[in-house]
Amino acid sequence: MKRILTKPIAGFMELLPAEQIVFNHIFDIIRQSYELFGFAPLDTPILERSEVLLAKAGGETEKQIYRFTKGNSDLAMRFDHTVPLARYIAEHYGSLTFPFRRYTIGKVFRGERSQAGRFREFYQGDIDIIGNNTLDLNFDAEIPSIIYFIFRQLGFERFTVRINNRKIFNGFLSGLDVSQQSTAIMQAMDRLDKIGINAVRQELDVLKISARIIDKILQFVNLNGSNAEIFAKLRQIKIDDEQFKIGLEELSKVIKQIENLGVPQRYFKVDVSIARGLDYYTGTVYETNLDDYPEIGSVCSGGRYDNLTDHFTNRKLPGVGISIGLTRLFDQLYKKGFFKIGVATLTRALVIPLTENTLQSCLVLATKLRNNGIATEVSLGDDKIKKHLAYANKLGIPFAIFIGDDEEAKKIFTVKKMTTGLQEQLKLDEIIKRLK
Amino acid sequence: MKRILTKPIAGFMELLPAEQIVFNHIFDIIRQSYELFGFAPLDTPILERSEVLLAKAGGETEKQIYRFTKGNSDLAMRFDHTVPLARYIAEHYGSLTFPFRRYTIGKVFRGERSQAGRFREFYQGDIDIIGNNTLDLNFDAEIPSIIYFIFRQLGFERFTVRINNRKIFNGFLSGLDVSQQSTAIMQAMDRLDKIGINAVRQELDVLKISARIIDKILQFVNLNGSNAEIFAKLRQIKIDDEQFKIGLEELSKVIKQIENLGVPQRYFKVDVSIARGLDYYTGTVYETNLDDYPEIGSVCSGGRYDNLTDHFTNRKLPGVGISIGLTRLFDQLYKKGFFKIGVATLTRALVIPLTENTLQSCLVLATKLRNNGIATEVSLGDDKIKKHLAYANKLGIPFAIFIGDDEEAKKIFTVKKMTTGLQEQLKLDEIIKRLK
Repeated sequence: MKRILTKPIAGFMELLPAEQIVFNHIFDIIRQSYELFGFAPLDTPILERSEVLLAKAGGETEKQIYRFTKGNSDLAMRFDHTVPLARYIAEHYGSLTFPFRRYTIGKVFRGERSQAGRFREFYQGDIDIIGNNTLDLNFDAEIPSIIYFIFRQLGFERFTVRINNRKIFNGFLSGLDVSQQSTAIMQAMDRLDKIGINAVRQELDVLKISARIIDKILQFVNLNGSNAEIFAKLRQIKIDDEQFKIGLEELSKVIKQIENLGVPQRYFKVDVSIARGLDYYTGTVYETNLDDYPEIGSVCSGGRYDNLTDHFTNRKLPGVGISIGLTRLFDQLYKKGFFKIGVATLTRALVIPLTENTLQSCLVLATKLRNNGIATEVSLGDDKIKKHLAYANKLGIPFAIFIGDDEEAKKIFTVKKMTTGLQEQLKLDEIIKRLK
Repeated sequence: MKRILTKPIAGFMELLPAEQIVFNHIFDIIRQSYELFGFAPLDTPILERSEVLLAKAGGETEKQIYRFTKGNSDLAMRFDHTVPLARYIAEHYGSLTFPFRRYTIGKVFRGERSQAGRFREFYQGDIDIIGNNTLDLNFDAEIPSIIYFIFRQLGFERFTVRINNRKIFNGFLSGLDVSQQSTAIMQAMDRLDKIGINAVRQELDVLKISARIIDKILQFVNLNGSNAEIFAKLRQIKIDDEQFKIGLEELSKVIKQIENLGVPQRYFKVDVSIARGLDYYTGTVYETNLDDYPEIGSVCSGGRYDNLTDHFTNRKLPGVGISIGLTRLFDQLYKKGFFKIGVATLTRALVIPLTENTLQSCLVLATKLRNNGIATEVSLGDDKIKKHLAYANKLGIPFAIFIGDDEEAKKIFTVKKMTTGLQEQLKLDEIIKRLK
């Protein structure tokens, strides 16, 4: 028979059970955190009509998208959760309560050239808050407080949410009379850390931007200091542009409110260099860096978008949201030893009948343990006990419980801790306490 | 601006938040149950190389599959979890512990003609147990005990796991000298309930099967009575076929062991008419029907497959498993009123500052509630209190908590039960108790 290649496609993460258990744990922490902040679950289709996904996209996205026809339908696989959300809100507007808070955690697809650390299929975990007509700036400030909560839940002590407002940079560029090229400039700035200052200069040069303007832009994005210092410097810049002023005002309000929302100062920072290349952001933008792993880049990004639903409805439905790339986060931090992989099983106890007669008692015990939330397996094959114990050992099941005629009669069971070999005689309620 | 259609593609379920919450609850019960029985989580890519998915498929599957090329790759979206599992096991054989128990709950895709109650994208929740070389029949018996556990967890009191062994029917057909047409015959039999006896007769007639043989087949699949009666009748059939005898022996062992595994008799039943049209089953097969909703058909099916990994490895890796179609189960039973839809939020409490000064206290309280697992929102907009309460009311948030200067000073908060309007003054620990 012809043998078929069994490797998954490049760029598609596939985990072993012990790794999957850790991944799912991360997934669960993010899900629970989102739910604790009052976000309702939402799940949109993986396939959409292509015109929906491409309404706001174009450029790189269009090249990366998995798109095909089936029958008469021009279909595409979602590349993020934001565009499907915009469609969803337009479609179900009448059934939703605003401000609408929802989370979605699921796979998205980008068929880019496969390279180390890049995935074509990956999980994104998003939250968004959508307002009806208006959305208070306080919600822009709430987002970093949620990031703060989640990344501490995930076990991180040192990370920084970098915050900017696109109106500032947009207004700045407009004041310099280069707003026509603003998208290209922002995308170049987004890559500043990655490609370096000279490459960025070259890119801007190609756009026919004068050396004087390039200097001003680079000087601007290199503004640094404490939040107060940055604001002081921004206020000194001589730019007569309404957008610039509004952006500065908004950012200042958001930063002040983040403090009020209980996020310690060292966890967030104004950074006028972040632009978030995506076209749809219109105000506050966020990126999150792990201080001990700067090379990973941003692990949680997002921002405010006031016009995302434009293509789907006449209503004004501004929103603010963030996305965590779970697949990359897991992959990078597992390789760096931050996320530790444990055993390949969730099972806490393997119940082993010492004679055929006691199988029934094993099953009764297993059911009671399961009803107490303890994952339990019963040895079902007719292998020797040694083999059952080898199975428990290899998987990493922490406890084996033996039931022979004696144990069955007395309802006191032999519980063996696999790591130490220590055996104890325990009653049901004692077992439950021990194993929980 | 051109408005784009916002309806999801036909056959792709999209839920409102209140529905999604119930769907997720079902998802969680199934996941937790699988984990309690010692199945480890696994997640395979949604996209596979087409040759992987089509290795065992063909026919209907090939027509339904979403398949396309990207660059040089011939790709397809998974249509079940079983074929990807076979590939996975072949690929990762050396890293797995056998018997290998895994669950996968995720979306699968079948681009069939859209019709009421049929989905093109739907969740399947699968468990499988894979043996290395051999797999004890006891695992075939364990499966119905898991189905029994799950469907009771889901709230069903009356359901029946119907069990058969394909060797019996295969052997029977072989004894009648029509084994060449066995696949077509089985597929016809699978549809007996749906299309009726005359249509089945016609289908078999087209296959050039004689009326005498058709009578025998129909008589066979209509065998009924108690399990003991059916076994008695099967043993009386004069078929000299080794496979038939092995199948009978296996089924009899499995049925006996299911009883030993603690499943009450009324929850399972031998049914020689179920064949499971899929080619890959080789022994025990299962279907599960809800006694109060027979029109829905099987809600949980599966079986034993001894050769599924053939195309991927030389090793012998027999398995047994089942699949629950979550999307259809939810859709049907929600429409029939079995699954009740509640509120559109998971939030238990909305904390409302009565003055701007007390926002800080609201946030501290919210954080404490969240740390105790209570989903909490804080009113952030500068709307009037009436509007915040209207939001809580519309969403169905059960409690509103007010903090004014007085509450802040005394650390005793005003808690309003939204359904009754009743207000109480409670301390933090009392609030936690009340809201949990």
